[in-house]
Amino acid sequence: MGTDGTTIAALMSDPRSRDSNKPACQVCELPLPELEPDSALLRVEFSEVCGTDVHLRNGLLSGVPYPIIPGHVSCGLLEKVRGTVRDVEGRTFVEGDRVTFLDVHRTCHACWQCLVAHATTRCPDRKVYGITYGIDDGLTGGWAGHIYLKPGTRVISLDGVPSETYMAGGCSLTTALHAVDRADSASGDTVLVLGSGPVGLSAIALATLRGARRVLCIGAPDARLSTATAMGADGVVNFTEVTESDRATWVMDHTGGRGADVTIECTGVPAAVTQAMRYTRDAGRVVIVGQSTDHGETSFNPHLDLNKKHLEMRGCWGSDYSHFHRSVDILRVPGVAARWSAIKPDRYPLSRVDEALDLVANGKVIKALIIPQP
Amino acid sequence: MGTDGTTIAALMSDPRSRDSNKPACQVCELPLPELEPDSALLRVEFSEVCGTDVHLRNGLLSGVPYPIIPGHVSCGLLEKVRGTVRDVEGRTFVEGDRVTFLDVHRTCHACWQCLVAHATTRCPDRKVYGITYGIDDGLTGGWAGHIYLKPGTRVISLDGVPSETYMAGGCSLTTALHAVDRADSASGDTVLVLGSGPVGLSAIALATLRGARRVLCIGAPDARLSTATAMGADGVVNFTEVTESDRATWVMDHTGGRGADVTIECTGVPAAVTQAMRYTRDAGRVVIVGQSTDHGETSFNPHLDLNKKHLEMRGCWGSDYSHFHRSVDILRVPGVAARWSAIKPDRYPLSRVDEALDLVANGKVIKALIIPQP
Amino acid sequence: MGTDGTTIAALMSDPRSRDSNKPACQVCELPLPELEPDSALLRVEFSEVCGTDVHLRNGLLSGVPYPIIPGHVSCGLLEKVRGTVRDVEGRTFVEGDRVTFLDVHRTCHACWQCLVAHATTRCPDRKVYGITYGIDDGLTGGWAGHIYLKPGTRVISLDGVPSETYMAGGCSLTTALHAVDRADSASGDTVLVLGSGPVGLSAIALATLRGARRVLCIGAPDARLSTATAMGADGVVNFTEVTESDRATWVMDHTGGRGADVTIECTGVPAAVTQAMRYTRDAGRVVIVGQSTDHGETSFNPHLDLNKKHLEMRGCWGSDYSHFHRSVDILRVPGVAARWSAIKPDRYPLSRVDEALDLVANGKVIKALIIPQP
Amino acid sequence: MGTDGTTIAALMSDPRSRDSNKPACQVCELPLPELEPDSALLRVEFSEVCGTDVHLRNGLLSGVPYPIIPGHVSCGLLEKVRGTVRDVEGRTFVEGDRVTFLDVHRTCHACWQCLVAHATTRCPDRKVYGITYGIDDGLTGGWAGHIYLKPGTRVISLDGVPSETYMAGGCSLTTALHAVDRADSASGDTVLVLGSGPVGLSAIALATLRGARRVLCIGAPDARLSTATAMGADGVVNFTEVTESDRATWVMDHTGGRGADVTIECTGVPAAVTQAMRYTRDAGRVVIVGQSTDHGETSFNPHLDLNKKHLEMRGCWGSDYSHFHRSVDILRVPGVAARWSAIKPDRYPLSRVDEALDLVANGKVIKALIIPQP
Repeated sequence: MGTDGTTIAALMSDPRSRDSNKPACQVCELPLPELEPDSALLRVEFSEVCGTDVHLRNGLLSGVPYPIIPGHVSCGLLEKVRGTVRDVEGRTFVEGDRVTFLDVHRTCHACWQCLVAHATTRCPDRKVYGITYGIDDGLTGGWAGHIYLKPGTRVISLDGVPSETYMAGGCSLTTALHAVDRADSASGDTVLVLGSGPVGLSAIALATLRGARRVLCIGAPDARLSTATAMGADGVVNFTEVTESDRATWVMDHTGGRGADVTIECTGVPAAVTQAMRYTRDAGRVVIVGQSTDHGETSFNPHLDLNKKHLEMRGCWGSDYSHFHRSVDILRVPGVAARWSAIKPDRYPLSRVDEALDLVANGKVIKALIIPQP
Repeated sequence: MGTDGTTIAALMSDPRSRDSNKPACQVCELPLPELEPDSALLRVEFSEVCGTDVHLRNGLLSGVPYPIIPGHVSCGLLEKVRGTVRDVEGRTFVEGDRVTFLDVHRTCHACWQCLVAHATTRCPDRKVYGITYGIDDGLTGGWAGHIYLKPGTRVISLDGVPSETYMAGGCSLTTALHAVDRADSASGDTVLVLGSGPVGLSAIALATLRGARRVLCIGAPDARLSTATAMGADGVVNFTEVTESDRATWVMDHTGGRGADVTIECTGVPAAVTQAMRYTRDAGRVVIVGQSTDHGETSFNPHLDLNKKHLEMRGCWGSDYSHFHRSVDILRVPGVAARWSAIKPDRYPLSRVDEALDLVANGKVIKALIIPQP
Repeated sequence: MGTDGTTIAALMSDPRSRDSNKPACQVCELPLPELEPDSALLRVEFSEVCGTDVHLRNGLLSGVPYPIIPGHVSCGLLEKVRGTVRDVEGRTFVEGDRVTFLDVHRTCHACWQCLVAHATTRCPDRKVYGITYGIDDGLTGGWAGHIYLKPGTRVISLDGVPSETYMAGGCSLTTALHAVDRADSASGDTVLVLGSGPVGLSAIALATLRGARRVLCIGAPDARLSTATAMGADGVVNFTEVTESDRATWVMDHTGGRGADVTIECTGVPAAVTQAMRYTRDAGRVVIVGQSTDHGETSFNPHLDLNKKHLEMRGCWGSDYSHFHRSVDILRVPGVAARWSAIKPDRYPLSRVDEALDLVANGKVIKALIIPQP
Repeated sequence: MGTDGTTIAALMSDPRSRDSNKPACQVCELPLPELEPDSALLRVEFSEVCGTDVHLRNGLLSGVPYPIIPGHVSCGLLEKVRGTVRDVEGRTFVEGDRVTFLDVHRTCHACWQCLVAHATTRCPDRKVYGITYGIDDGLTGGWAGHIYLKPGTRVISLDGVPSETYMAGGCSLTTALHAVDRADSASGDTVLVLGSGPVGLSAIALATLRGARRVLCIGAPDARLSTATAMGADGVVNFTEVTESDRATWVMDHTGGRGADVTIECTGVPAAVTQAMRYTRDAGRVVIVGQSTDHGETSFNPHLDLNKKHLEMRGCWGSDYSHFHRSVDILRVPGVAARWSAIKPDRYPLSRVDEALDLVANGKVIKALIIPQP
């Protein structure tokens, strides 16, 4: 924490102008904002480092107004509220409340995407705290002592949900909930999850909770696959140790030779999209949620992999408020929340965010939490 | 027609053993079958030559028991009925009735695909008249004076629908109806159809009838595009004359810069699958129905083309009885049937089926009908 | 039009305090508003009298802040724009543009209904011009020379759509589009529409446009049924002349003895809801859109009418922006717009709105338009 | 068991000709059948008494060819197989296999309902073992030492599922699975189950397994509500002790004042259908599965209860093969099967079936199993 009227933050510089001898982020002291009406100041308890933050450091995302304070999904205590900030059920927040918030701001509810297509995650006006809001927009990232919750930010009470449990899921949980909704598995289905990163792990738990009879996971490394098992996977395979053809055989062996009823791709690897099609049964469904940035192309055979299979593929982009709200609701069930305690996040102070980025980039940790308070 | 107790048929030989100096099909005389209980003999009025028949000649389909009598969708008069043959509403057919029938036989309604996945077009027991039934199975193709309608064949009255109108749609109409169902466009949508072959043309008409505000078609050659316009397309582009990038621009210009709400791919060209994704708006839907045989791979960018677009792609395989039944019902509406009269099928006797195959293969005719009666 | 700086309006008084010797509405002169930023003043070309307005006069709706200026769906010219008013595609409106607007204002996009249930037509914050906005909210109804389009009002260009065609549909068209979407009929279905008021008539046209093979209508009086036929109904029955049992027989006679695939109830009569269930086939769908106010109860047999029939019933409330936007889009197709020209609206000046209300209440006119300009 | 070549069965006589001093069922000895090709003889381990059997005794079902051997869902060992009997995955059954079977026989897959509407549970040709098959059709009910599994009967292996666990669910489990599928709840929903009979109890367990955050149950008596809790209900209310208005309040108190997201009616009481609508939130969904026989009418307000609520109601009739297949699959998961062990079925020999019927009719037992082997 800074001196009176200031806070500290890890500021990420522009990759194009970055001095490669220096870390990507530097801790600095920033003034606390004057609050606009119906806004609030959040004292950050936890923020997180996710794959998106690695992309941010590597300059792989468009529309990022560097320098920025990274950290999109975060939680903490409302330190100051000016005017009225309400939850969606009309309850007024008071200072001291422990909360999280939808990291997406300014969904316009006034454009064709929002109002005609009802595809709000494709609204061009959206700004995301910690990603497309930069330092010029204020204290808009979670790798800081405080976040300025601008008017219109959708705040959610964490009452009944431990902060750590919530952050063990974090942005991956809401993304996975969107993907599992879109996968629309039936009670008793076999669900295959490709990828054992945070999104894959939450998808495993949510698919199990939705009534899958069997959840399979292909991922790596072994430590993550152990977590996958702890979160509900009935079978796991380390793709670094098993050939693609043997992986296909393994899936067929577990699915009566037909392939998974539903496959959820959470890998970030283009070739996995093609594999997802091949590992899924005829007339099954594939959700693609792991291709959050551009890693190039993949090829497939549209006759064999899609048309003749009568297959359905669904891209899944972002999350909206409902996924955050329902994620928190789901974690309010004690037995359910316990699943996410299998993820043991490592904790890093602001001074070590570059190290945390390295570990996430290399898959050395499952989840890295940032603890900005000294 | 052959002598008493016989009929004539065009028999297609095995591509592997074919003498390249001779035509693929030869007209021969075959005995009429003894009818089993609850079966019938159809005197063929029209059969057709479709893209599948070209694949048959080229040996591109698996599971074909050459030699076969090609011709899957056909119509004619019931010349003989033994026992009872009923339609799905319980009406008994009598000799002289003008009918068509579901070319798919033996969908088992007893396997996992039929009974658990409810994906009957993926039933492994299906046999298709003129494709996977061969001469050893009897008079099982439409390029013949008679077809033996085995017990359990689903027969449909053509009462109220002229035979030629029905055959102008033919197998393409039922395939297109399945695709348009699966495309699930909303009233007022812009629908893009890729391909102007028979499936594409029927898809254009059906998409218009389903309430599309605007149907666009990219195809070739110009003669087919004129037919596309006659069947309801509001705008057409000849892909042989316009670059891919200009085609994309053309689609965007007609869709407020967003892309089509729904795209139906009916081309047979793998690259068109990728184009379909790119020509479709965010959160839109793509149906892939044109990849009925293996023409190789295509590549795409799963981040840009699928995940970030929040796109949905649906493979569409085959047709079931409902598509045949509803197709005939739809054609019973005079104003609707009129659309298909824009397709002016060329007619060929059995002795010219090879010529008809060439013309279909080269896109020289839109639709070739076989008239087996002398 | 009033003197400089004023306009004229028909003001409807509170039914509870109304002097029964006087008309419900009185024309008065009201000051034109000072425009807030990003608002506009619409010079009204047409407004309409619909069933809701009759309910308003009769005091059957809750939450109405009498006195009000009725008239929810309206169109006209933008006389003044202050700041920027854009359409959903980002185009800026200029003075002189001919437009309509979503009569629902202040959908909050911040409550549980909006953000979690995605059921924006059930948002408790919604205010409807001409219904739940009253004179204290400004010039908020269409039975006036001008409407004040408050900031945030969703304005739609009528470019390419004649005002009269649009108003012939009016609020009924958007309501019917919502209902027809929700009815989700398949190409070739038989659709039964109960009711031949404006919603029923638009539902008939839209169901036909969506590919119904046959649209049946049960309504009254004969003049409306003639319009039903002109808008696309293939068969009509006057319920005042045919017993309920004979109506059921008539439906069965037209549907192979099974009942309609889809029934859309647009009557306002509770008993019609039960009839809708009985006139629909097993595993069919019923949409209830005609019960917009409380006319009491109906009874049905849940075993016979719902459970054993495996029937689906869908209530359909209000419209959102997409229904307005798409309605205008649909009317941009000349051949489609022509259907609505079968409705020949009668026209009334502000001084005759009570008379128009009487005629609508008694079903004497199909559609009454208000022309406020002198 | 009878002497060689015979078996014993409880035969239920026609209610119309029944001597009220005598029990409805009498144990008699019947000859074992000659097996047709591809049929089998099942030595019954368990059959059950369900609400349908009470309706049978009371003459409330139509199309019952008394005298009949009741008992539709049953399990046991294949004592004799003639020819080939396969499961849906093509595996051949051998004598000694422990199996159950789809009690519905002769779904025709040839009628309009089966092939066009894809509504196979409404196929008019269906015959149900123990209900619409009578003694003239052979050993066709489970209250007997043996059942004759006619050719075409869909047999399912119980490998990995204890017979008692399976029968604790029995016909209620498959019915409930159909209902829960049709309820289509989302992860985190609050699901309300009306009724705590066997269908309600299985619905509770299945709704929980499908990811409901909270399952509420209104039923009676207390013993069944305790079982409801053991099977996963988070809150229960005894409707005999709480007024309807207080029940509504209780539901609202547990659902943020909105009502359940999804309600599944499993009561058999017409008024419960109306209550289901009122206990459900706006834009929610109600499944009606408890009205399996005619208990009369109920009334509701279509404006308040359906149209304005934007509610969806879905009747749910019968089960098809997929529900049986998936039910068995679901019970193969040990942790899942454990839920159904909370139902402690009482066991009755054939000589006490009338007593079992009385107890089921009076709600004195949750589930009565028939053990026909001496």
